[in-house]
Amino acid sequence: MPEPTKFLLSEADVPSRWINLLPDLPGEPLPPLSPATGQPAGPDDLTPIFPMGLIAQEVSMEPEVEIPEEVREAYGLWRPTPLFRARRLEAALGTPAHIYYKYEGVSPAGSHKPNTAIPQAYENAKAGIKKLSTETGAGQWGSSLAFACSLFGLECEVFMVGSSYDQKPYRRSMMETWGATVHRSPSDLTQSGRSQAEHPTGSLGIAISEAVEVAAQDPDCNYSLGSVLNHVLLHQTVIGQEAILQMELAGDEPDVVIGCVGGGSNFAGLAFPFLRAGSKTRFVAAEPAACPTLTRGAYRYDFGDTAGLTPLMPMYTLGHDFVPPPVHAGGLRYHGDAPMLCGLVKAGRIEARAYKQNETFDAAVKFARAEGIIPAPEPAHAIRAVIDEVERGDAKVILFGLCGHGNFDLAAYDAFLSGSLEDPEFSEADMEAALARLPEAPAIA
Amino acid sequence: MPEPTKFLLSEADVPSRWINLLPDLPGEPLPPLSPATGQPAGPDDLTPIFPMGLIAQEVSMEPEVEIPEEVREAYGLWRPTPLFRARRLEAALGTPAHIYYKYEGVSPAGSHKPNTAIPQAYENAKAGIKKLSTETGAGQWGSSLAFACSLFGLECEVFMVGSSYDQKPYRRSMMETWGATVHRSPSDLTQSGRSQAEHPTGSLGIAISEAVEVAAQDPDCNYSLGSVLNHVLLHQTVIGQEAILQMELAGDEPDVVIGCVGGGSNFAGLAFPFLRAGSKTRFVAAEPAACPTLTRGAYRYDFGDTAGLTPLMPMYTLGHDFVPPPVHAGGLRYHGDAPMLCGLVKAGRIEARAYKQNETFDAAVKFARAEGIIPAPEPAHAIRAVIDEVERGDAKVILFGLCGHGNFDLAAYDAFLSGSLEDPEFSEADMEAALARLPEAPAIA
Repeated sequence: MPEPTKFLLSEADVPSRWINLLPDLPGEPLPPLSPATGQPAGPDDLTPIFPMGLIAQEVSMEPEVEIPEEVREAYGLWRPTPLFRARRLEAALGTPAHIYYKYEGVSPAGSHKPNTAIPQAYENAKAGIKKLSTETGAGQWGSSLAFACSLFGLECEVFMVGSSYDQKPYRRSMMETWGATVHRSPSDLTQSGRSQAEHPTGSLGIAISEAVEVAAQDPDCNYSLGSVLNHVLLHQTVIGQEAILQMELAGDEPDVVIGCVGGGSNFAGLAFPFLRAGSKTRFVAAEPAACPTLTRGAYRYDFGDTAGLTPLMPMYTLGHDFVPPPVHAGGLRYHGDAPMLCGLVKAGRIEARAYKQNETFDAAVKFARAEGIIPAPEPAHAIRAVIDEVERGDAKVILFGLCGHGNFDLAAYDAFLSGSLEDPEFSEADMEAALARLPEAPAIA
Repeated sequence: MPEPTKFLLSEADVPSRWINLLPDLPGEPLPPLSPATGQPAGPDDLTPIFPMGLIAQEVSMEPEVEIPEEVREAYGLWRPTPLFRARRLEAALGTPAHIYYKYEGVSPAGSHKPNTAIPQAYENAKAGIKKLSTETGAGQWGSSLAFACSLFGLECEVFMVGSSYDQKPYRRSMMETWGATVHRSPSDLTQSGRSQAEHPTGSLGIAISEAVEVAAQDPDCNYSLGSVLNHVLLHQTVIGQEAILQMELAGDEPDVVIGCVGGGSNFAGLAFPFLRAGSKTRFVAAEPAACPTLTRGAYRYDFGDTAGLTPLMPMYTLGHDFVPPPVHAGGLRYHGDAPMLCGLVKAGRIEARAYKQNETFDAAVKFARAEGIIPAPEPAHAIRAVIDEVERGDAKVILFGLCGHGNFDLAAYDAFLSGSLEDPEFSEADMEAALARLPEAPAIA
């Protein structure tokens, strides 16, 4: 019998609670600030576009939040996800270290995003909402919400960034297969869209504005966000809870836990349960050198969106109107990060590293040729960090999050293999410009 | 705790033997005939392009064949695959029937094809072969062989049908990511290719000829085939063996087992272990109305390829030079079927049904909106047959094979959802023309 490469749990092991790390964080939580008044924003500021069930989760100080049965049952369509020992990658790297990865690509949408799309759709349906609106860039989040809405009988309206809409028709078809309506943004359906007719390729900022406008104007429609917010990170903690059980099955404890960071929900989902457990594990957040929020950003209050409609949040930011170069890891092209995650980086509990595009795809191809699975460009950053750890030689047991497959990202592999992939980097001038554009807000200690 | 929707096995449950149904079949096996002499072809006729390990499996009369440890270990990268109870589909259809599906889309290449690509790569590597050549149409088989070759250190050369090469660049990128070399067929690398310069879009027949020519001329290179042959069906029986254990876990026995049929290896892989077990289960093979080999074909000796280079095989055929209409289920566009499967259809043990393209995609969308997974167009035919069974009301427990996901087939969904999908059907005139073109060979009793 060969040595095991997979550590599987039964459906009964789907977690029954989410881990809320908010009460564990050092100091008092820094409140979001109203964009209108600059004063701390409360739950009431969120009711026009979010249901109370999610707002309660957003501000909860309970250490655990029970997962509704309907959500657990929907999770059961693909959860628990497998944890793999990467024996072939270990052999290819010639390392004695044990390398494990938690694989979220088995979800119908192909990533970790449905972990939060499902409870968001559930809470909205429970509140009597008929429709959810959202934006999507590369399409991962829009696909996941479309899937979740199909399970809970909600309409789903997705504003897809124009350039992606044109370049990635298959992600659009995927959303439509699940019954969603997809608009090319900027559209002529909203004032936000019509006012941007001179920017026909669109942007995530414009798409957010369109989705929020639709939700704010229709009492039957709410808005849904796929990362950054506390309740989104909360939902993702099913990943790490399962991984803890699976590492026990494997008989190993991770010396280091590694994940990629865009808005931070995938990383937090894997890392927070290990942090809660009080583990001595190190944590490494991997991000693109083209959008190095955690390694180069300023720790300041900034808007969550380009247009400045959302509350100001305390985070590492490159400036809310920074437009990252078009690297293929579309899910990591966000100007800020989840406030909870930023607090842990600031406190020194999480280490951040930035990687360039070519070295990242080089790692991804090594992984694919050893382990089979072709990674999405986002978790390829985590794989690059794993190889870094192996080369440094400190860690005996490494666990990383493989948050999605690359079936929809093969154009990026094509560019890498043909040598035409660029390596954009963030510059000092970019940072100076970003600092100059930050909104007025209290400094953070 | 919700009712379980998934029935999982541990890695130790990866089967240790393949099921060889050849000794169970009624009567003496009908031999393949040499294309040169018309006489029964023996193992020696196959040695220029296949290793002895696979030839021995092709002609074995042993009821079981042991799976080498190296193959089991590679299977462990994704096997055992999950078996699902489709509770949400049952609810959507309003049926008291229990519907189960065995899902092979969790393999790195996204289908059941690696089940045979792995042992084929293994046996060739063991025989000292350095390279495998093959053809691919839509890309599923080429991807799977590229993946398998990357695990066993073999070079892989794929001749991809020209029209697919142009339309499906992502399948090509996938093969290249695993290290394969992909040629647009017809190429100028082979005599077979150069002679077809007037057919620039290519065909599967031309691509087979190119791959066979490369293998026949290079002693370090063998050829590899993804369906039809006995050893390919043998390798796929891991599917049904796992499904039998999983149905026991679920506490149900299938009244009917349903699968789609192109060359027949996916169907055989699921069905043969149930047939071996002597089950009273009914078996239904679902095929496209545009290429209705089992429901409309003649049971005759015919060539396996368009050019007439392969041995003549006893099978239901639409004529070896029949070019099926370009339906999206590319994997079902084959003029014949596996001889073993054809024998069982002829004997009345397996029932065949043909479905049109639009009714098939309608079933696939129903499935996706209920269960999440977007099926490949090929197993969508099986889903159509499942809905048929539900409407007929005879079966209390239905099991079908979901042999792959549709992540690379979303253009087909787009065409269906926009109403532009055609419903080509096979005509009497097509059949008359096919019969007139069949090669001279002994009639089959």
